[in-house]
Amino acid sequence: MDIVCLDMEGVLVPEIWINVAERTGIEELRITTREEPDYDKLMANRIKILAQHKLALSDIQAVIASMGPMEGALAFLDELRTLTQVVILSDTFTEFAKPLMQQLNWPTIWCNDLEVGANGMLIRHRMRMHDGKKKAIQALKELNYRTFAAGDSYNDLSMIREADGGCLFRAPKNILLEHPDLKLATTYDEFLSIIKEFLAT
Amino acid sequence: MDIVCLDMEGVLVPEIWINVAERTGIEELRITTREEPDYDKLMANRIKILAQHKLALSDIQAVIASMGPMEGALAFLDELRTLTQVVILSDTFTEFAKPLMQQLNWPTIWCNDLEVGANGMLIRHRMRMHDGKKKAIQALKELNYRTFAAGDSYNDLSMIREADGGCLFRAPKNILLEHPDLKLATTYDEFLSIIKEFLAT
Repeated sequence: MDIVCLDMEGVLVPEIWINVAERTGIEELRITTREEPDYDKLMANRIKILAQHKLALSDIQAVIASMGPMEGALAFLDELRTLTQVVILSDTFTEFAKPLMQQLNWPTIWCNDLEVGANGMLIRHRMRMHDGKKKAIQALKELNYRTFAAGDSYNDLSMIREADGGCLFRAPKNILLEHPDLKLATTYDEFLSIIKEFLAT
Repeated sequence: MDIVCLDMEGVLVPEIWINVAERTGIEELRITTREEPDYDKLMANRIKILAQHKLALSDIQAVIASMGPMEGALAFLDELRTLTQVVILSDTFTEFAKPLMQQLNWPTIWCNDLEVGANGMLIRHRMRMHDGKKKAIQALKELNYRTFAAGDSYNDLSMIREADGGCLFRAPKNILLEHPDLKLATTYDEFLSIIKEFLAT
């Protein structure tokens, strides 16, 4: 019995914060886990920047709602869900993910949530647990699942290493250089082929 | 962060084996976990009966494909999936569940699988693990999820008792008499109300 765990941003949908940076013109919001591996530090900084610019949750949600999945992501995910069980493991937040999950036909997603003030401003992020992606893989293995994990960022590496199989999807050069042994998919067709190969073994 | 775990048969789709019994006229196949709490014994006996009557996997799949979800189940599940994360925990088998999951918009399901011979006859069932429903709840709690579980049968009781919240759905009289403290929903509206109440706390 197999289960496939996918990162969300950069794999199925665009990087939320890069889009927010583009729309708001705030360059500092461009930084992602690709550049800053410490997610708590990254999120605390993002929330501080948003407060400085008086941007509320609803402003970010408006950007997210208009983003949509990456081209080909919905067809890829729809097909994958006919082949095996899929859980999206993301460090994003329920409040951000919902409009995207709707556009992806409501796949299962395990992520985190945000504390939001009465004025709609973000107060802080709440991680469900430390290193949640890796621990999700461990939990699924404990339930006797054979696991496959894929992502594009630093925060995906521990789950990919923990899983029975895995690959990178459109990962940046620094990660590829540091992890030359990991398979890389750059199209959804390649991605599906690598996963099918795992399911067939 | 919440997650809702639902039994499949009797909660979202009709009891598979009762339908197989009706279509094939084999009365012995009517027995379910409602009457026989030992699932391994129950499945071994079902496979023996199918062999005696020369019924293959494809015969059962044909029945399942024509069953469809229970009236109101799809709307209930679609709405629930907009509110929270949902995983179906079932003792059924991948080979049986697939046509039903397609009709339910591909929710995540954790179940078991079957060993099938070259002639298409069932050889044996393979449980992913013993007491898998309860252990799934435990694993989700370890991942810091607040869990809600619901079902209608003996094999659902350990997951309902393990979860942070739960209820029965259209359970038979013997289970209601033995577990008078558990909430009971008999319509999908009641079911959704009980779950919403849990999510709001």
